[in-house]
Amino acid sequence: MNKFSRSERIGVMTKILTDRPNQIHTLNYFGELFGVAKSTVSEDVMALRRALKAFNLGNLETVVGAAGGIKYVPQPDEEYVSNFIQDLCNKLSEPERILPGGFLYIADLLFTPHIVQQVGEIMASRFYEASPDFVITVETKGIPIAMMTARALNCPVVVARRDNEVTEGSVVTINYVSASSKRIQTMSLAKRAVKEGQRALIIDDFMRGGGTARGMVDLLKEFNVDIVGVGVMIATEQPKQKMIDEYVALIELKEVDEVSRKVVARPVL
Amino acid sequence: MNKFSRSERIGVMTKILTDRPNQIHTLNYFGELFGVAKSTVSEDVMALRRALKAFNLGNLETVVGAAGGIKYVPQPDEEYVSNFIQDLCNKLSEPERILPGGFLYIADLLFTPHIVQQVGEIMASRFYEASPDFVITVETKGIPIAMMTARALNCPVVVARRDNEVTEGSVVTINYVSASSKRIQTMSLAKRAVKEGQRALIIDDFMRGGGTARGMVDLLKEFNVDIVGVGVMIATEQPKQKMIDEYVALIELKEVDEVSRKVVARPVL
Repeated sequence: MNKFSRSERIGVMTKILTDRPNQIHTLNYFGELFGVAKSTVSEDVMALRRALKAFNLGNLETVVGAAGGIKYVPQPDEEYVSNFIQDLCNKLSEPERILPGGFLYIADLLFTPHIVQQVGEIMASRFYEASPDFVITVETKGIPIAMMTARALNCPVVVARRDNEVTEGSVVTINYVSASSKRIQTMSLAKRAVKEGQRALIIDDFMRGGGTARGMVDLLKEFNVDIVGVGVMIATEQPKQKMIDEYVALIELKEVDEVSRKVVARPVL
Repeated sequence: MNKFSRSERIGVMTKILTDRPNQIHTLNYFGELFGVAKSTVSEDVMALRRALKAFNLGNLETVVGAAGGIKYVPQPDEEYVSNFIQDLCNKLSEPERILPGGFLYIADLLFTPHIVQQVGEIMASRFYEASPDFVITVETKGIPIAMMTARALNCPVVVARRDNEVTEGSVVTINYVSASSKRIQTMSLAKRAVKEGQRALIIDDFMRGGGTARGMVDLLKEFNVDIVGVGVMIATEQPKQKMIDEYVALIELKEVDEVSRKVVARPVL
């Protein structure tokens, strides 16, 4: 007789698999954990896969080969994503977010874990195929989305800094031009943070002219790193011509009108 | 006949509950989701609670009253925590982390999601009783731990900034003295970020003299906020006298010797 029932095993398996998305666990691991045969684990996996699928809660993928096993992949379904992003657009359109100069206050959204976890899982779902080795962002506001995207992709985050910190060791520093303000800015990355030939995914919260993303591209060139994608939560409609050609945005910000206190934001689907 | 088996329901329930720690879900919610009676959901909950408990994966707590229901509370068990922190200490002791001036490179650990998620859950487990309304940290390196602590506590993060950003709106700025360098530094917090009377938990990655934590205490005084705790991942042994009296540290850093390339770090239990 098994020590744990199927439902108990499935509860524990769900916790372990979903806690660490995109990380492979072998069937043997679960077999030993529960003291059951691999065939029993297989049946558990099938039941769990079916259940998660039925509620659009993501996929359990089987990875074959020597390093094979199963992994949980967050894959929010399109209807859910569309509702969630529409809801974010509604929040962005609250007139009290408008700051002098037509800026929007969004720090509260960016630093609420359950919101940004969902943003990260949606962002990650656009880049599974690209299989990045790390996610890169610039301090500060991009960090939560980058962390949650990296959590779903199961890779680390690397943070380019605007200052030069003693705790980073030797750094490579570049100057870049902010597309909107035309000011020269500085961005540094620790030499030990990335390795030549790695695959980088650039993530940020907001893109206006694309100067910051372009800065990250130029910075990564110094490291001989491949850039496999650029994702931003919000991109402004203007200027149409960004300093980056290809990027994924979840939300397009059409208009922030300080006088009429009106914000127009719409999902990019 | 039920549309979903107990094991399928439990898989889905686990995903929903553990995805959003410390958030109450009603039994009715699950009853309607699965099309089963509340009594059936109750039995599912008991089975899941027993299973998570058996594997030390956290607690399912029942919250009684009008706003009652069940919630998942990450509560890593002591043996697990002690092994995990010892492992972090071993990583910190790698001689190649030593930077000029006796600083330690720890950004790779702080920005790896599955490491920092565990640090956050351990940190949160020290402060459930304090029930903070938000977690506060200073950019940059404290942000991931603060985010993951807040995820486990189910509250937002608020970030004090060293610069003054247009996207923050009006801010309150203070000057404070770094205890180690004796330099005067600046810290700003958006006025709209917190409300009078809220309960704040201060979280940071590293504490030497305690100047930064003390700066956050002073900054929060300007907002009439209650401080319910201070938690840091690593505190140095020296100076013994910090600028903050009470704090929780997970790791004590005894020594970083640039000459002999030796680091001594030990768990605080």
